[in-house]
Amino acid sequence: MKVVKFGGSSLADGAQFEKVINIITSDEQRRVVVPSAPGKRFKGDIKVTDLLIAFADKTIAGADLSEIKKQIIERYTAILDYFEITDAPFVKTLTETLDQLARVHYPTFDYLYAAFTGHGEYLNAQLLTTVLNHLGYPAEFVRPDEIGIVVDGTPRAAIINPFCYPQMNNYKVSADKITVVPGFCAFDHDGAMVTFSRGGSDITGAILARGLQADLYENFTDVSAIYTVNPTIVPSPVEIQTMSFREMRELSYAGFSVFHDEAILPVIETNVKINVKNTNDPTAPGTMIVPTSAVDTQTITPITGIATDARFAAIYIHRYLLNKEVGFTLKVLQILAKHGVSYEHMPSGIDDMTIIFDKSLVTQAQIDQVCSEIEQTVHPNEISLIPEFALMMVVGEGMHSNPNTPTIILSALSQAEIGVSMINMGASEISLMLGIDTHKIDEATQIVYEQFFA
Amino acid sequence: MKVVKFGGSSLADGAQFEKVINIITSDEQRRVVVPSAPGKRFKGDIKVTDLLIAFADKTIAGADLSEIKKQIIERYTAILDYFEITDAPFVKTLTETLDQLARVHYPTFDYLYAAFTGHGEYLNAQLLTTVLNHLGYPAEFVRPDEIGIVVDGTPRAAIINPFCYPQMNNYKVSADKITVVPGFCAFDHDGAMVTFSRGGSDITGAILARGLQADLYENFTDVSAIYTVNPTIVPSPVEIQTMSFREMRELSYAGFSVFHDEAILPVIETNVKINVKNTNDPTAPGTMIVPTSAVDTQTITPITGIATDARFAAIYIHRYLLNKEVGFTLKVLQILAKHGVSYEHMPSGIDDMTIIFDKSLVTQAQIDQVCSEIEQTVHPNEISLIPEFALMMVVGEGMHSNPNTPTIILSALSQAEIGVSMINMGASEISLMLGIDTHKIDEATQIVYEQFFA
Repeated sequence: MKVVKFGGSSLADGAQFEKVINIITSDEQRRVVVPSAPGKRFKGDIKVTDLLIAFADKTIAGADLSEIKKQIIERYTAILDYFEITDAPFVKTLTETLDQLARVHYPTFDYLYAAFTGHGEYLNAQLLTTVLNHLGYPAEFVRPDEIGIVVDGTPRAAIINPFCYPQMNNYKVSADKITVVPGFCAFDHDGAMVTFSRGGSDITGAILARGLQADLYENFTDVSAIYTVNPTIVPSPVEIQTMSFREMRELSYAGFSVFHDEAILPVIETNVKINVKNTNDPTAPGTMIVPTSAVDTQTITPITGIATDARFAAIYIHRYLLNKEVGFTLKVLQILAKHGVSYEHMPSGIDDMTIIFDKSLVTQAQIDQVCSEIEQTVHPNEISLIPEFALMMVVGEGMHSNPNTPTIILSALSQAEIGVSMINMGASEISLMLGIDTHKIDEATQIVYEQFFA
Repeated sequence: MKVVKFGGSSLADGAQFEKVINIITSDEQRRVVVPSAPGKRFKGDIKVTDLLIAFADKTIAGADLSEIKKQIIERYTAILDYFEITDAPFVKTLTETLDQLARVHYPTFDYLYAAFTGHGEYLNAQLLTTVLNHLGYPAEFVRPDEIGIVVDGTPRAAIINPFCYPQMNNYKVSADKITVVPGFCAFDHDGAMVTFSRGGSDITGAILARGLQADLYENFTDVSAIYTVNPTIVPSPVEIQTMSFREMRELSYAGFSVFHDEAILPVIETNVKINVKNTNDPTAPGTMIVPTSAVDTQTITPITGIATDARFAAIYIHRYLLNKEVGFTLKVLQILAKHGVSYEHMPSGIDDMTIIFDKSLVTQAQIDQVCSEIEQTVHPNEISLIPEFALMMVVGEGMHSNPNTPTIILSALSQAEIGVSMINMGASEISLMLGIDTHKIDEATQIVYEQFFA
């Protein structure tokens, strides 16, 4: 049995719905389907989720809702029209649901936004069921909680409660019809609609793949595979055929964003394989994401992919005998925690440490406060801010059996006179992290790509 | 004015004393002298400090003390004999001091051992003063507290109280005579003798160099310079002419032990230069240890030295989304602190961290407890112990202006088919740390040495 998730661009209009239905019905293993909300039909179009956010904003503001409701309704009814469905009860459901959403009293704004946005998927799953049935394919809409999904966390960043998996294992997936489960949304202990973090249909799919013990989790999106490198830096790069869960994580960290980070968690413990495929080219093999143990060590290449990201800044702290003082790092981390600053990495030397941040997640005021408190508390011999730099992650399970990979990479950069300000390869030996000047990062990426894929 | 410290082997017997006195009296700038206790005269000999520890052990055990006292007295009187000094009051002082040491009541064993061992230097400073005066060189024995040295900490690991430096600045060093200050020992607030950590005469010298605003701190030992690499691995290696404080720290971390770690601290803030010299070859220039700002960037070589050490073990922790969980590292550090485990470094990846220990400082039981508590508290996807590996530190202020240095090193190791399991170069860019199999570390060291010094 396969769990199949479709992204928003795969369900943006009637023509895309048709492709999706062909994909679902062409393989009898595809029994559980997870749709996102309708995405953009063309450049500049607005996703239904964003329309729902505007609807929520207007509701809170007490503004006139008729125009925004009309826009949302039209997105769904255009799809019914495409299939020439005129008498479906879904139209009435749609209007009533939107009216109801605006009428309910919510305990917090978080709950309100969760309910509004979660309905993008909820309504689209009802619509997909309607269309499937209309075309003669038996299909049933099933709520996440009916399958046994239980969540904790906050209304807009729900987290699966892992104790619900045994209960989900008991759910019998019908062999005679297609089960359609809305992505992204779930229900909390009080029955209120909540959502995973944005893009969370990937997570719903992963939870179902694990809980229902699927043989494969197919994730349909709008690219034919995950590329070995960002195609805006290297045109038409090689596609990745197979990568491990760990490789995907390392790559997604520095710029790869095909698959939602948190969606990896439900599948890793049961080793369900993920196949990232293209709705617009469904016969292409796509990219398989598998456990490390399923990586073929015979055919493995030294590296699987290169990711780069220029979003980093760092605080450099030097203090003599730093490593002799038990608790030094602890004190620094407590200062970070106190000011709500989360850091990305913390490479350490003998007498120094570098705290790397995502610039977009911290303010200048936070950094100033942290620096000043570090100075007062731990009295470093030197503390300085590196305001911006890029990271390059070169990732490959094959690096372990090709120990000269770092040499090849550093030689190539060295020949091109590109300096490397930071080098980090940990005990996992599947990735090499390099700190590079933001102005040189694209050139550096092209050079490293050439070494392994040209 | 120069502060001059002599190590134990430089003061082991009369012949060595003669060399030391020639060194002191050949330069009028050498006004403050810090002697260690007499060291080994030949292979298999016992240092006076170790005789004093045996004396302390026997005192605690209530054993007969006559033989051990005799041995200690003979070490000092042999030096008097060498200079044909027969009537010095020092002989009486010596005997009375040892008798008194065994008679006093000490608040703790720590105080007892501090008093016994500290007298190795204390008596030797009195002896050196006696010999100098006998030879017609005006000299005065001065206690550390008379110059203004104030210490905190524990009896056998005293720490300088930095607030005493301004007071020391007021001490007038006599221009007409040699001031002899015993190394290693000091006096606490109650007047009890305490000591720095073992080898602490280096620290006394550094404190005096700073407090008395010396122009140079000369540190006389039994090698003509600090070598670029361990001479037991590479025979007759190149000597280091100049190195920075930071370089010395990085190198001393992995095996270089010419100069006491903690002795660097007093000098760095006032930028007093250190000259490591050889008592047996005093005209050799030795090695200058200077602030980074005093390193000559025109003549700098890519690397200054290579240090290696095979004393490490590591815990490897892998957990998906580790970097997204604020406080993960904090929790792990708290577990380490709870079990009294201090770690050396903690290189971190996207979803993993490696905690590197000095094997000699942790027990298997501690490691087992820490691993088990980490498993229960943070639920890693993988946790494993790397029971042993060696670290190579390649260090050089010149690395910054020679950015292809890591490439040269890794290429050479790669050609020799020596795998590197860990690579770390931080933002300071003055050292490259490599994890290498303990069985390959000597070969790896020879190969890297060849690249830069052959």
